[in-house]
Parts: sequence; C-alpha cells; structure tokens
Amino acid sequence: MATETERKFLVRPEVWAATHVQGGTELYQGYLSTDPDRTVRVRLSTGQAWITVKGRTQDISRLEFEYPIPVEDARQLLTLTVSQVHKTRYRVPVGAHTWDVDVFHGALSGLMLAEIELDAAEEVFEPPAWLGQEVSRDARYYNSALSAAQRLPDSSGEA
Amino acid sequence: MATETERKFLVRPEVWAATHVQGGTELYQGYLSTDPDRTVRVRLSTGQAWITVKGRTQDISRLEFEYPIPVEDARQLLTLTVSQVHKTRYRVPVGAHTWDVDVFHGALSGLMLAEIELDAAEEVFEPPAWLGQEVSRDARYYNSALSAAQRLPDSSGEA
Repeated sequence: MATETERKFLVRPEVWAATHVQGGTELYQGYLSTDPDRTVRVRLSTGQAWITVKGRTQDISRLEFEYPIPVEDARQLLTLTVSQVHKTRYRVPVGAHTWDVDVFHGALSGLMLAEIELDAAEEVFEPPAWLGQEVSRDARYYNSALSAAQRLPDSSGEA
Repeated sequence: MATETERKFLVRPEVWAATHVQGGTELYQGYLSTDPDRTVRVRLSTGQAWITVKGRTQDISRLEFEYPIPVEDARQLLTLTVSQVHKTRYRVPVGAHTWDVDVFHGALSGLMLAEIELDAAEEVFEPPAWLGQEVSRDARYYNSALSAAQRLPDSSGEA
C-alpha cells in the first residue's frame, strides 16, 4: 500500500512531437470498478500485469494498492472489465523527476496526458516545454472516467 | 485462474447444532464491486488475506481469480469496500468431499450456508444430515448480495 500523490497535465502536441521521445510501452488497462471511491484496474504491459485498487482522490492524493498477477490472468480479467483504455506510456526524465507521458489510442486518440508522482503536494518540479494545462483535480481526466469513452469490441455498450 | 463450480445449500440449524463441529475460522470480507459480472472481494482471515475477482455465474460455475495480499493491506482495503460480511467458516469432510459451512454474524446472524466445490456440475456427493434446501441458483444467496444487508459501522448506509 502507498499513498499516491500526483499532478496531471495535458501535453502540447506540437512541442511533444518535436521532442522525438522513443521507447514507449504499450499498456492495455480495464476497470472492474470505476467507482471513484474504489476503482479496480487490471493493467497488461509487455510480459507484466497488475491488479490495482485505488481509493477516492483527496486533493491530489489517493490510497493505492497494486499486486502483480500472471499475464494470462490479466488477458482473461480484461474480458471481465466494464471499460478499457489502450495507451502508450513514455518515461521522460526532466530534472529530478521522471514523467509518465501517456499517448492514448482508439476512441481517445489525440489525447496525451503527462503525470508526475510527488512526495508531497507542494513539491517543486521543473516544467518541461511540452507541458500544457493542469488537470490534476479534473475528474474527467481520471483514466477510469476516460475508459468509459472506449470499450473493446467484445464488451457491451457503445461501439 | 480457475473455473469454480459449486453447489450451495441452507443448513438445518437443529441438526448442525447437534454435530458439535469445532475449529472454525473467522472471515471478514468486503466487496470493492458487487456487480455480478465482475465481483471483487477482499477477504481477511487469521494471518492471511486475498483479493478475488469472480465473473458472472453461469449455471453453477464462474471464473475465479484469487491472489494473496498482505494482511495489513486487507485491513485498509476493507475500509474501501462498499459492503461487508463477517462469518465463521467450518471445513467439514463428508465422504469424498469437504464442505465449507459458513455461520454468518452481525445483521446476517442466524443464516448458515454450506458450499461444496465440484469438478463438474453433475458430480455426485454424499448429502450430510444437516443439509437443507439447495440455493445454488438463487442470486440472493451470493455473498456479494448478502453483504448489502450488513455494513460495518464506519461505512455509509443503514446501521
């Protein structure tokens, strides 16, 4: 268990495109619960998978519990999820921190979000040139909320 | 991952009381999702804990994925759950099978349920004397449904 404190920003696409960051990791994730008081996420990466429970966000922090699970379980668990997200994650060191920059695919194509994990909400960090508007406190940008816009073909709901 | 195939029965209290079964294990469990398509359960026993995802029950079988988690995580995860159950589980060998007999506490006090895991739905088993009416296909007796009748004091909802 840990308390996760993070800030989240939109990414300026034209600046990002000019940085030519390489080596992203494809992530497939789906939600067994999108309830903001208790989200349950299954995440499948290349050869690794996890199940993660997060509590309600308070300011920019929330409880997080993450456990590795077999990749084959994750494949099957994804078929049980109510909604899914497919994105490529880039790890980008800037100053003393490393950003997670997520480039979304599918129905969310065009969306890019940058996240930074902090030790405390007021921690100072160096803003990269591609950083756009902050959306840390905007629940519409929770991945669990974004996932509702994008369901895999074998799930129920809007195609 | 496994497919869980089980039959579930009420227990005849007067016959059960006369069997004097000892050595039950206290279980606290709560639900992060009670959606029957994707229930997510946290279970805390004595010195052990698990997070478990179950798919929709089809006839008397369902997908089940279970992972051990730290006991301290389970204590905290239980505070995130939407509803909870507290019961004592007795393991009772009868013929070739071992029954799980659950004696519920709190708001469900008085309820007893016996479950048997089978390799196939049609598998034959020896019915113990205390076995009552079968409720395998009655969704009201899912623990996730029963849990809604009983919330811990620190949760929202009916006291």
